[in-house]
Amino acid sequence: MDQILRVNLEHFTTSNEAVAEAWAGLGGRALTSAIVAAEVPPTCHPLGPNNKLVFAPGLLSGTSASNSGRLSAGAKSPLTGGIKESNVGGTAAQMFARLGIKALIIEGLPKTGLWYSLHIDRNGVTIHEESELLGLGNFAVLEALQTRLGGKLGVLSIGPAGEMRLASANISVKDPSGKIRSHGRGGLGAVMGAKRIKFITVDDSGAPGIQIADPEAFKTASRAFTKALLDHPVSGQGLPTFGTNVLVNILNEAGGLPTRNFTYGQFDDHDLISGETMHDTIVARGGKPKHGCHAGCVIQCSQVYNDKDGHYLTSGFEYETIWGLGANCCIKDLDDIALADSIMDDLGIDSIETAVAFGVAMEAGLLAWGDGKEMLRILREEIGKGTPLGRVIGSGAGSVGRTYGLTRVAVVKNQAIPAYDPRSVKGIGITYCTTPMGADHTAGYATATNILNVGGQVDPLKKDGQVELSRNLQIATAAIDSTGMCLFIAFPALDIPECLPALISMINARFGIQLTGDDVVGLGKSVLKTERGFNLKAGLNSAHDRLPEFFASDPLSPHDAVWDFSDAEIDAFWNF
Amino acid sequence: MDQILRVNLEHFTTSNEAVAEAWAGLGGRALTSAIVAAEVPPTCHPLGPNNKLVFAPGLLSGTSASNSGRLSAGAKSPLTGGIKESNVGGTAAQMFARLGIKALIIEGLPKTGLWYSLHIDRNGVTIHEESELLGLGNFAVLEALQTRLGGKLGVLSIGPAGEMRLASANISVKDPSGKIRSHGRGGLGAVMGAKRIKFITVDDSGAPGIQIADPEAFKTASRAFTKALLDHPVSGQGLPTFGTNVLVNILNEAGGLPTRNFTYGQFDDHDLISGETMHDTIVARGGKPKHGCHAGCVIQCSQVYNDKDGHYLTSGFEYETIWGLGANCCIKDLDDIALADSIMDDLGIDSIETAVAFGVAMEAGLLAWGDGKEMLRILREEIGKGTPLGRVIGSGAGSVGRTYGLTRVAVVKNQAIPAYDPRSVKGIGITYCTTPMGADHTAGYATATNILNVGGQVDPLKKDGQVELSRNLQIATAAIDSTGMCLFIAFPALDIPECLPALISMINARFGIQLTGDDVVGLGKSVLKTERGFNLKAGLNSAHDRLPEFFASDPLSPHDAVWDFSDAEIDAFWNF
Repeated sequence: MDQILRVNLEHFTTSNEAVAEAWAGLGGRALTSAIVAAEVPPTCHPLGPNNKLVFAPGLLSGTSASNSGRLSAGAKSPLTGGIKESNVGGTAAQMFARLGIKALIIEGLPKTGLWYSLHIDRNGVTIHEESELLGLGNFAVLEALQTRLGGKLGVLSIGPAGEMRLASANISVKDPSGKIRSHGRGGLGAVMGAKRIKFITVDDSGAPGIQIADPEAFKTASRAFTKALLDHPVSGQGLPTFGTNVLVNILNEAGGLPTRNFTYGQFDDHDLISGETMHDTIVARGGKPKHGCHAGCVIQCSQVYNDKDGHYLTSGFEYETIWGLGANCCIKDLDDIALADSIMDDLGIDSIETAVAFGVAMEAGLLAWGDGKEMLRILREEIGKGTPLGRVIGSGAGSVGRTYGLTRVAVVKNQAIPAYDPRSVKGIGITYCTTPMGADHTAGYATATNILNVGGQVDPLKKDGQVELSRNLQIATAAIDSTGMCLFIAFPALDIPECLPALISMINARFGIQLTGDDVVGLGKSVLKTERGFNLKAGLNSAHDRLPEFFASDPLSPHDAVWDFSDAEIDAFWNF
Repeated sequence: MDQILRVNLEHFTTSNEAVAEAWAGLGGRALTSAIVAAEVPPTCHPLGPNNKLVFAPGLLSGTSASNSGRLSAGAKSPLTGGIKESNVGGTAAQMFARLGIKALIIEGLPKTGLWYSLHIDRNGVTIHEESELLGLGNFAVLEALQTRLGGKLGVLSIGPAGEMRLASANISVKDPSGKIRSHGRGGLGAVMGAKRIKFITVDDSGAPGIQIADPEAFKTASRAFTKALLDHPVSGQGLPTFGTNVLVNILNEAGGLPTRNFTYGQFDDHDLISGETMHDTIVARGGKPKHGCHAGCVIQCSQVYNDKDGHYLTSGFEYETIWGLGANCCIKDLDDIALADSIMDDLGIDSIETAVAFGVAMEAGLLAWGDGKEMLRILREEIGKGTPLGRVIGSGAGSVGRTYGLTRVAVVKNQAIPAYDPRSVKGIGITYCTTPMGADHTAGYATATNILNVGGQVDPLKKDGQVELSRNLQIATAAIDSTGMCLFIAFPALDIPECLPALISMINARFGIQLTGDDVVGLGKSVLKTERGFNLKAGLNSAHDRLPEFFASDPLSPHDAVWDFSDAEIDAFWNF
């Protein structure tokens, strides 16, 4: 019987609770957002005793369905001041699901001044004092826990950034290779740090496992679903070959690659940081161009990137990180960026937020454009050690902008805008404005249809159809984020007719229910409205659904594109 | 004929405009807020080209009416993100009025990368390139301008804080003694810095002067008004003798003196920093216990505070500054605080925001509680030089709290809460929550009735009557802030029946009109609604009309008082 685990750190109590009826059909993002909206006072301080940190595997997590191993984390965000859901691969989601844990809720703050860890197994959750691993980076934590506890543990941890409660701290999750995936956006690591939880270990030995109501139907649907993932050119070829970094050359060609802190739309040295260059480098150095972030992934967009001597440097090396430190900071050396990626994983800090913050810091004159070595020094010596400069940058792009009095600061709801310039990829701009998450490309990836011609074609430079596109994608994404599926299944789901029905059939076969496509759309709408409702009560309203004004006043080369949506056009997003 | 001067820094144009009919009856705060609400897009970046900086003398400024020499400044605040009015003494308001300048509007940003000054005289306003005085503190600017231009100039300037666009930078205004008064709150100095105006000089020689429609009636009313100011025990005795710092012992006795970053309600060493001690120190060192911030002031709450050797150290040495660095930072040496006051005047930074920021910095462990010498070093070496730490503190209390992940951060709308703890002076808490200005005691000084028994009596520890009290005071204050009157006229206005009618008679005699008491109340209401309307469009709604949650959860000694207003009770403020 699925249950909810609850940890109260004020009273040091834990409980195993039956799942409330209203939450029974929910998983992943739908469940974390429902719990946060129901239990967290919207105007509370994100780092105070009234915020709660919630983890939930998706509806299909733990099954054999391809790419279903995502874990959602939710809370009120210290970065945006609104509701946050951030999901991640790694091994924890599948362990939670096999243990029958529908959600873990961490509430209250300890008043002891001490630090703690949580341990989850088939008996529930226990609280333990922790001192030995404080101050360590995530890699050292993973290593120490392996020695201390052995076995195939799931681990969720925070690095120094989370301990320091930096607003761009992430929660790091162990992946099948013992490396790190991140609940990256919105500073959930700071919430975990405020609750003084250094790490959570998960042991699923003896877990009851997943009950499939109709195993045959599940198998049939699963096969069709996997075939669709493998058949689509993006999920079946582009991503496995070049990783997400395939996008550098594509966005550069489209004039939508934000360069030099969102001043230009193309980067002269794009070839040096492109997916093609990265692929060849990986192969030449004996790395792995294809690699999955969780068991059952057939897309394999991750990779193992080695250094010049053939030693492991990083994995999960994403386009947005490479864009952010590359084009947007004008750093041309992919090895510097890879090392930064590894350091950010170790510190436990969001690589998108931090990269955009570095771009603003360069505009402030704190380091020179393109100075990768100084960027690395700041990561290690300033952010890693919590100096004032490190904390300013580690608190995100908005923090740097406010502290240095700058106006070219690409944030929405104080969260950094990622790797697609909204002036020349207008659909993604609507997503940045309207998603309750703060600027987030994954919330409604309109780049797919604007640039990749997935799910049809919409002119990226024109406003026509963009609000509808973003709305449909955000609704679909909210639903997908609730299934435990990787967002990249959206590519085949948009283009291959068999894909989405197969996904719905898997859910139905798993639970013995009869969801229709309309039900799934209804779920997505409900998630968005729940999140929006929380934000409105937290004080984030349509005035916050806006891009910074420089996007409207400063044309972006090469198209001289500007952001030209009226307030009313943006606000029409919520007409559903 | 009164006119509006307009300076456009994008096109380097200036104009003298007739006063729009809607603005003809407005002055001071009513006029700056009306202009900002009409001309500034509410969601614009406060430091960007679309914000405007507006100055306006009050309706009675330039006349012989006692205490009528206040100048209002308005803009969208970089600290709060909402509308801001901050008013000041000094000589400029009266010069503006005598020159027939109803308002000065500064709009746009220069694209040249250069800095400028403005000069105002009977012919209008001119723009001048400036390089020589950049980087200098306000005192050096005043001295250099005296040498450069001679005469009895009015001066408005920014120090290094404004040049750095720090969110708590103020605009400094020369007073009759050649010292400094400040548009202190909300970071208007950063707006002036963003517009790259280092200073504004005013020469009123040959000014047309003020026309009084009914000189006899004016004289009669003025006499009655002045008598009321002198007769009231607060404005006639308490303030002239001890300055505003008379409040240290009073608030300590009431248990409402926030101590050690709002942890306690009383300060053991209150005697060391009290108004009584300050008075005796001033007298012993040959300073002046009574001193006015503008010509025509009969209250004389300012003072000249000398150092141990009898040399001038500071003036305009206010209770809120002394409380903030004293009780709230546990600094016991009044000379350290006086020196800090002088340095803050020189840097051009709000002494309330900065003092509260230091309290949060002490809680963060950046310096020890009570370490006045380190506080002085940080002011000079960090804030003065714009180091990362200096910028974090110089960006205000909220900035320090966010950067260091703290929750005991006493701000509303990101503006620091001043010297009256809302748990044990509940009326002022309603003002902090609801004023469109962000936490501001001057917006509706409920301490008068809660603690000083002026305007009746309301139990400071109880909720009864507090919302109504704050509402009435905020309406009256908005009207007073429009007349050019010092807020301290509110003490006699609340208690002496002849005072308010005399004020209204002066306005009527000045303009030849027939305002009633109801008209003045209507003006106050209209100002508040205009400001609230701007804020709502800027995204500041009732969710932002809240105190930080620690006021509700952490009882304040000695009364174990907590903030216990419901959201609905607070929101009832706006029912008018």
